[in-house]
Amino acid sequence: MKKIQIFDSTLRDGAQAEGISFSVGDKIKIAKALDELGVDFVEAGNPGSNQKDLEFFKEAKDIKFNNTKLVAFGSTRRKGIDAKDDSNLNALLEAETEYVCIFGKSSSFHTEKIIGVSKEENLNMISDSICYLKSKGKKVMFDAEHFFDGYKLDRDYAIESLKAAETAGAITLILCDTNGGTFPDELVTILEDVKKNVNIPLGIHTHNDSGMAIALSVIAVMNGCSQVQGTFLGYGERCGNANLSAIIPNLELKCGFECLPKGNLSSLTDIAKRVAEISNVKLNYQLPYVGASAFAHKAGMHIDGVIKDSHSFEHVDPSLVGNERRFLISEVAGKSTVLAKIAKLYPDVDKQDSRISSIINTIKELEYAGYQFEGADASFELIVHKAFGNFKSFFEVEDFKTIGEGPSEIEKYSSSAIIKVNVEDQVEVTAANGDGPVDALNEALRKAIGKFYPILNNVTLSDYKVRILDGKESATAALTRVIIESTDGSNTWSTVGVSRDIIEASFKALIDSIEYKLLKGDK
Amino acid sequence: MKKIQIFDSTLRDGAQAEGISFSVGDKIKIAKALDELGVDFVEAGNPGSNQKDLEFFKEAKDIKFNNTKLVAFGSTRRKGIDAKDDSNLNALLEAETEYVCIFGKSSSFHTEKIIGVSKEENLNMISDSICYLKSKGKKVMFDAEHFFDGYKLDRDYAIESLKAAETAGAITLILCDTNGGTFPDELVTILEDVKKNVNIPLGIHTHNDSGMAIALSVIAVMNGCSQVQGTFLGYGERCGNANLSAIIPNLELKCGFECLPKGNLSSLTDIAKRVAEISNVKLNYQLPYVGASAFAHKAGMHIDGVIKDSHSFEHVDPSLVGNERRFLISEVAGKSTVLAKIAKLYPDVDKQDSRISSIINTIKELEYAGYQFEGADASFELIVHKAFGNFKSFFEVEDFKTIGEGPSEIEKYSSSAIIKVNVEDQVEVTAANGDGPVDALNEALRKAIGKFYPILNNVTLSDYKVRILDGKESATAALTRVIIESTDGSNTWSTVGVSRDIIEASFKALIDSIEYKLLKGDK
Repeated sequence: MKKIQIFDSTLRDGAQAEGISFSVGDKIKIAKALDELGVDFVEAGNPGSNQKDLEFFKEAKDIKFNNTKLVAFGSTRRKGIDAKDDSNLNALLEAETEYVCIFGKSSSFHTEKIIGVSKEENLNMISDSICYLKSKGKKVMFDAEHFFDGYKLDRDYAIESLKAAETAGAITLILCDTNGGTFPDELVTILEDVKKNVNIPLGIHTHNDSGMAIALSVIAVMNGCSQVQGTFLGYGERCGNANLSAIIPNLELKCGFECLPKGNLSSLTDIAKRVAEISNVKLNYQLPYVGASAFAHKAGMHIDGVIKDSHSFEHVDPSLVGNERRFLISEVAGKSTVLAKIAKLYPDVDKQDSRISSIINTIKELEYAGYQFEGADASFELIVHKAFGNFKSFFEVEDFKTIGEGPSEIEKYSSSAIIKVNVEDQVEVTAANGDGPVDALNEALRKAIGKFYPILNNVTLSDYKVRILDGKESATAALTRVIIESTDGSNTWSTVGVSRDIIEASFKALIDSIEYKLLKGDK
Repeated sequence: MKKIQIFDSTLRDGAQAEGISFSVGDKIKIAKALDELGVDFVEAGNPGSNQKDLEFFKEAKDIKFNNTKLVAFGSTRRKGIDAKDDSNLNALLEAETEYVCIFGKSSSFHTEKIIGVSKEENLNMISDSICYLKSKGKKVMFDAEHFFDGYKLDRDYAIESLKAAETAGAITLILCDTNGGTFPDELVTILEDVKKNVNIPLGIHTHNDSGMAIALSVIAVMNGCSQVQGTFLGYGERCGNANLSAIIPNLELKCGFECLPKGNLSSLTDIAKRVAEISNVKLNYQLPYVGASAFAHKAGMHIDGVIKDSHSFEHVDPSLVGNERRFLISEVAGKSTVLAKIAKLYPDVDKQDSRISSIINTIKELEYAGYQFEGADASFELIVHKAFGNFKSFFEVEDFKTIGEGPSEIEKYSSSAIIKVNVEDQVEVTAANGDGPVDALNEALRKAIGKFYPILNNVTLSDYKVRILDGKESATAALTRVIIESTDGSNTWSTVGVSRDIIEASFKALIDSIEYKLLKGDK
């Protein structure tokens, strides 16, 4: 099986998407997720243009990646200066990665009209930059920006730009459809010509402006490219980059290429959910292979067909990509997932046990009400333990009040909360201040219960996420889902709460978090 | 220019998408919108399987369509009965459309294993059904279901099924990639063979399970198909149908085919917005050609390029499809973006004007504090108008209090807010209840100010988004960014607020929203 390199630019080109803004912490998490999946290269940022990206590379040095090589991205040197004096090229070196990827112009129109240099100087810029980076021990990939448009305008110059990079010592030449306007027939013809003129491996980098980025990438690989650049969920400027979460299974399951380490394809859907969650973007339910609807059947005739033989209305088996078949408006949906999760906690339970169907019903009702247990394992576990009778309540909140005041003044907490809890008939009333009502409530709750359960004193909240579920319909009264991540230093767990009131939603997630810790004890 | 027929199935195949449910009224509105655009055929439902669809056809009889022919959809007759006695076929006649489209099996696997009839009987079912409908004066199109999968399994039978439909008098044979798993190379080879064996016009119908439905449709047209079936925004079961809003401009602008009446392409984006609105689905911002981000530029270098020459980073001129270029304001965007946006409001301002650098500094400081203006144009405009001295304050909020209570009780508002505003020295104190503190505050604020400015009475919030910016570090006291979208029925605008307190952040965005509307007046 021929190996195809997967090069993910979620953290660089993906960050140019409208609405996406990654913190350094987000970037580290996404890089780790892509490493777990087994992506070959993660292009993580442009240290020359962005201080935050340099920070990322500094932090990333201490992380051991098993499958992934980080790549720092930059451009060819500026016009009229020595490569060794170019601050952007030197910033690339500071990233201390084994691989770097630089882009340069392949289009004479862009060379002369947009960056305003002569065609000859541009070729020198390509050549000098690669030579300089190579002399510093880097493996250099070359992104031939606007390659296809450039080729159509001035074929000879586009080819010359590739040759300049090849001669200077680039290890791979990536042909970029930067504006996303290239058509499949053009791609094939141009690729034929390129292969006759250069002799090092080729990559493909497409954008989705014509809605064909996935097809173009697949066709390019079928016609000889051995690297595919894209972003894992298609994030990117304008209409996005080529979506790797569809390209990888297309190439592996349909064309017999090898993209990921053996066995890893089945974690594709999980990684997709995780990357979307970290990016705070709702995973598009229609996404091929990994979307929630990708294997969801609604027409009665289709459901009948799939029950007789899944091939009748499914192009691949959903389990191959870690996704699930769903029958909409039906009771069978998701049962196998829930079963598998329960079996993890109670391995000996019988599949016909009535507690299992009771758990499934509870989960369904909660999901219908807006809950999601994908990112909230601890809340899910509590439901299971409660159904199995292995949970006793540790405390009860009799009531709480939150008071907010504004407009806010500097250096003054804007909110207070009062809470009344009952622990084995002992009543405790406490109050606390905070930044906003949720923060105040969190403080007050911990203060009140911590008195009885000192084990809670080293528990802190490590992440807090809010998602508005139906913002369009009811705006500020929209259904709100809160996911809280807690830690005691060695373990981390996540819980969920849903309500039209953000305070109430947060409160439910807080209660679950505390109950989970008390149930687990010091384990 | 060769004319390509556009066949839209939003109302039939699109209705099988998860989360989509059309009323008869919705269907009428969408059919009218597609007629206005100039789509040739609108497949509006299956009168045999759905009472609501029959109702639609009854109502639609009184509507004059200028460009569009309605199509009723059904299947071949049931096994073992006479076509004239088949209730589904007769329901098709009741729709009283000039055109009908019926699907039949082209795959011997589906024929024998899924519907359980002999290969011969299936061919008779195709033939009888078409003959019967034709005898009743109908123009019959034939959807060859699972054609490509069927061909790969049993080439001769798939071709025979087409010939049966051709001989019986079908006017068009539509080759369906029902499971969405066909690849471009296969499509081309199979199409070559089909063209040698049948002599009537061919259509293509693809699904997006491999993410290539748009490309497959375009390739099919380039290889001789003269009808494209799809759904206008790609709605459909699983990963959706081929997205016509991308296929139409691809064929017209890039391949020289004629799809719509001359001049109509420029209403593409408007019709897309309207269809999404009627379907109650947020228009995917990344959609090629018609999405809000389709021509949105964020990277500074790209913005510089587009300002010099729009071709540098745009594959087509956005006005050709009725969309707009947008420059997003973000960390990656340069000074030129801000300048271009200011120039839209104040076209005559000099680039050296000191107010411009003051605005840029303000934006930078706010971005550093967590603001983001790429989704909040109205807040940005307010900053500009304030810097230019064209904003006077309409009201002042002296103070507010919010009170929340929990655990919440059913059917009872969980929060209340009290607010004190001052409008030209008149003080107004009001209170309101709401689902959560933000909702209560929103209600109270509108009540208090609406008394002085009745123009606000038809302003409602249409979307509300919350983003936790540094959840990891300070959890429930994390910096929170709120983006609010408001509408007065004809215009929509977005504003932003940031604070450690979600109430305060929401409050800031609310104030901006109201100030923006008051500044614009009834314009």
